[in-house]
Amino acid sequence: MFDIAILGFGTVGSGVMEVIEKNSDMISQSAAQEIRVKYIVDVRDFTGNPYESLIVKDFSVVENDPDVKVVVETIGGAGVAYDFTRRSLLKGKSVVTSNKELVATHGYELTQIAREKGVNYLFEASVGGGIPIIRPITQCLAANKINEIYGILNGTTNYILTEMVKNGVAFANALREAQEKGYAEQNPDADIKGHDVCRKICILSALCFGRHVYPQHVETEGIEAVTLDDISYAGRIGYRVKLLGRAIHMEGDKIAVYVAPHLVREDNLIASVEGVMNGIIVRGNAIGDVMFYGAGAGKLPTASAVVADIIDAAKHVNARKWLSWQDGGPELIYDVGLLESAWYVRASDAPEKIRRVFGDVTVIDGLKDGETAFTTPVMSKNKADSLLKELSVLSVFRIID
Amino acid sequence: MFDIAILGFGTVGSGVMEVIEKNSDMISQSAAQEIRVKYIVDVRDFTGNPYESLIVKDFSVVENDPDVKVVVETIGGAGVAYDFTRRSLLKGKSVVTSNKELVATHGYELTQIAREKGVNYLFEASVGGGIPIIRPITQCLAANKINEIYGILNGTTNYILTEMVKNGVAFANALREAQEKGYAEQNPDADIKGHDVCRKICILSALCFGRHVYPQHVETEGIEAVTLDDISYAGRIGYRVKLLGRAIHMEGDKIAVYVAPHLVREDNLIASVEGVMNGIIVRGNAIGDVMFYGAGAGKLPTASAVVADIIDAAKHVNARKWLSWQDGGPELIYDVGLLESAWYVRASDAPEKIRRVFGDVTVIDGLKDGETAFTTPVMSKNKADSLLKELSVLSVFRIID
Repeated sequence: MFDIAILGFGTVGSGVMEVIEKNSDMISQSAAQEIRVKYIVDVRDFTGNPYESLIVKDFSVVENDPDVKVVVETIGGAGVAYDFTRRSLLKGKSVVTSNKELVATHGYELTQIAREKGVNYLFEASVGGGIPIIRPITQCLAANKINEIYGILNGTTNYILTEMVKNGVAFANALREAQEKGYAEQNPDADIKGHDVCRKICILSALCFGRHVYPQHVETEGIEAVTLDDISYAGRIGYRVKLLGRAIHMEGDKIAVYVAPHLVREDNLIASVEGVMNGIIVRGNAIGDVMFYGAGAGKLPTASAVVADIIDAAKHVNARKWLSWQDGGPELIYDVGLLESAWYVRASDAPEKIRRVFGDVTVIDGLKDGETAFTTPVMSKNKADSLLKELSVLSVFRIID
Repeated sequence: MFDIAILGFGTVGSGVMEVIEKNSDMISQSAAQEIRVKYIVDVRDFTGNPYESLIVKDFSVVENDPDVKVVVETIGGAGVAYDFTRRSLLKGKSVVTSNKELVATHGYELTQIAREKGVNYLFEASVGGGIPIIRPITQCLAANKINEIYGILNGTTNYILTEMVKNGVAFANALREAQEKGYAEQNPDADIKGHDVCRKICILSALCFGRHVYPQHVETEGIEAVTLDDISYAGRIGYRVKLLGRAIHMEGDKIAVYVAPHLVREDNLIASVEGVMNGIIVRGNAIGDVMFYGAGAGKLPTASAVVADIIDAAKHVNARKWLSWQDGGPELIYDVGLLESAWYVRASDAPEKIRRVFGDVTVIDGLKDGETAFTTPVMSKNKADSLLKELSVLSVFRIID
C-alpha cells in the first residue's frame, strides 16, 4: 500500500482520482503495489461527493502524516501551491505536479530541495498535458546534444488559429467559440497573450539546456495581432500561422528563447497540428528531428501524465530522479533581435516602395487595395525592424520552414 | 568508469562508437560516470581502423571479463546474436540492442533471463530507430490502458510510397531509387514484404498488451501490390496509401494484429509522415491519441537510442528495469478476418455490377476504361472477401480514418 494525497480537487485533481480508480489494476501492477489516495486537500465544501470522507481542509494533516509518500499538487499558481510543495519536499515527500507556472517560476529551487532531501519533484504533466515529453527528453534523448526545441504548446490558441484557417472565423469570434466549448478561460489572457506557452518553453529550456530560464526574460507575443488577412496570405504561399514557443542553443551556451506567432511551412508536420492538440519538435545532434504529438490539455490526458509520475515516484521512493538543472539569469539569454530568419510582412505601402526599402522581397499576390504582403530575405529581427520603420506595417511574423 | 562491449561493428555499432565519442561529456554526466568501450567484437578485419586495438574476434573474451557490465548487441538476426545475448545475460551482464528480429522472436525468453539474473535487456532502438517509443509506452503511458497502436514503422517502404504519391514514380523505379540512395537493401524483401514491420508491431504489442506476439502468427502483407492507379484514386477522395503495422486490444484479451497497406485519411497526422520518417500512434484510455515521429532508421538516430539505453543500464546497474511480459501463442490472436472497416477496392467490373454485389458503395470518379474503384461500407474482411469473389478484383486495401 502506497499512500498519496491530492492537493486541489479541481479538474486535474479529480481527473487523477478518476484515472487511479479506472485503471487501478494496471496501475498497481506497474507500481508493484497498490496506490491509495489517503487525503484530498481542498478548502471548498464537497458534501455528498463520493470522496467526501477523504477531504481535509488543513494541509498540515498531510504534511505531518509520515504514511503519505507522494503529494500530488494540482492547485495551480505560484502561491499556496509553492508553500505546500516546499513543505512537502522538506518533509521528505515526493511531489508530482501539473503546475507549469510553479515549475517555470520556482523549478530550480524546488528541484534543488528535492535533490537535497533525496526525493522526487516530477512534472511531466506541466508541459504538453498528457504527451510524454519530459521523460523522453531527459532519458530517451540523453545521448543527444539538443540544438533546438519548438512547438505548439497551447491548445486554446491553436484551436483559435485553426478555426481562423479552416473556417475563416475572425479572432474575436473564434475566441468566444473556444470559451463556449470550455477550451478557453473567461479571462483568456494567459493563453492568448502567450504567457502559458512562455512558462512551458521555460521548463523545456531548462531540461534541454540545463539552466533555468525565467519567464520574465522571455520575449513573449500572443496571437491577438493575427488577422484573417494574414492567414489568407500565408495560405497562398503554402504556410500556416501557428503560435510557437521556441528555444535554440546558441554559441557561448546562450539560449535564444521566445514566444511568437510564426508562418510555418505546410510540409513541416507542426503545421498539421490542429485544434486543441499540441506538437513539440526536438532537434538533437544524433537523432535529428523528433516530434511528440497529442492532447496538450484536458482532464484525463493531464491526469494520465500525473499518474505516470505517481507510479514512477512509487517505484523510486528511495531513489532520486535526475530532474534538475542549474540556476539561470538574464546573462543566459541570447538577444532574440539578433536571431535571423525570413519575415512575413503586411504593410499599407505599394510594392515599389517596399522594394526600395528591402530590395529583394517576394510579394504575395491577391492583395487588398492599398495593402502589400511580402516575405523578406533572411535577416535579423533588428535589421528587419529598422527597415520596417520606413513602412506602414500592419503585421510582421517570423517564418519557420 | 563503466566498461561496455560492442558486438558487431557495422552501421549501428560504429554509430554507437561515434555518438559516445561525439557527446562524451554529456553522456558521462547523464550516466554519472564515464562510459568506456573496452571491446568491439567482430570477426572481420579492421586493420588501420582507429579502433583496431579494441577489436577482438572471440566473444568469450567479453563473456569472461567481469569488468564488462553492458554488452551492446548490434549484430542483427536471430543466430549468433541470440547466442551471445543469452550468454551475456546469463553472465549477469545487461544487454542493449537494436535487433528487432531477435526481440520479436526471443524477447519473452530473453527478458525472463534478464529478470532472473537481475540485469536489463533494453531495446529502445529496435522499434522506430531513434524515436523514443518503448520507454514512453512503458513509463509515460503507464497509467493508461492501451486500446490500439499503429503506425508507419518502416522507412524504406514509406520512402517508396511517398515517391509514388509525390512524384508519380512507379513501384519498381521507386524501389531502385531507394536502393541507390542506400535506403533499401539489395535484397529488399524484409522491407517490402512487410516482415520488418511485422517484427516491430510484435514488440509493440508485447509492451502494450503484456503478452508475446510471435511474427509467424501475424498476417503480413507488403506494398508490392500497390499501384500508381490506387494511389491516384485514393488521392481523389482525400486519402494516402501507407503501410501500417497495427495492433488492437480486443474483447477477451485477444489482440488483432496485422501488417498491410491502408488508405489513411489526409487529416490523420500519420498521412503526413513522409519519406524515410516513421510515425507511431498510441491510443490510451486516458490520454487519447499520441503520436511519436522521427527518423526510424539511420546510423546516428539508431545509435542515439542505443546509447540512451546504455546510459539507462549504467544508472540502473543494480536494478532490474520493468521490461517484461508473459508468453503468448496462437490462442492470443484475434481473427483479423472479423475486424471491421471500410474497404477500398479497384476491380475490372462496371459500377452496376459492383452495386448489385455490394449495395451501397461510393464510386471514385475519373476511372480508366473498364475499371471501377470504390469504397465499401464498414464490414469485416471475411464479409468483404466473400462479396469480392463475385468481382474481378485488382486491388483491395483497408481504410483507416
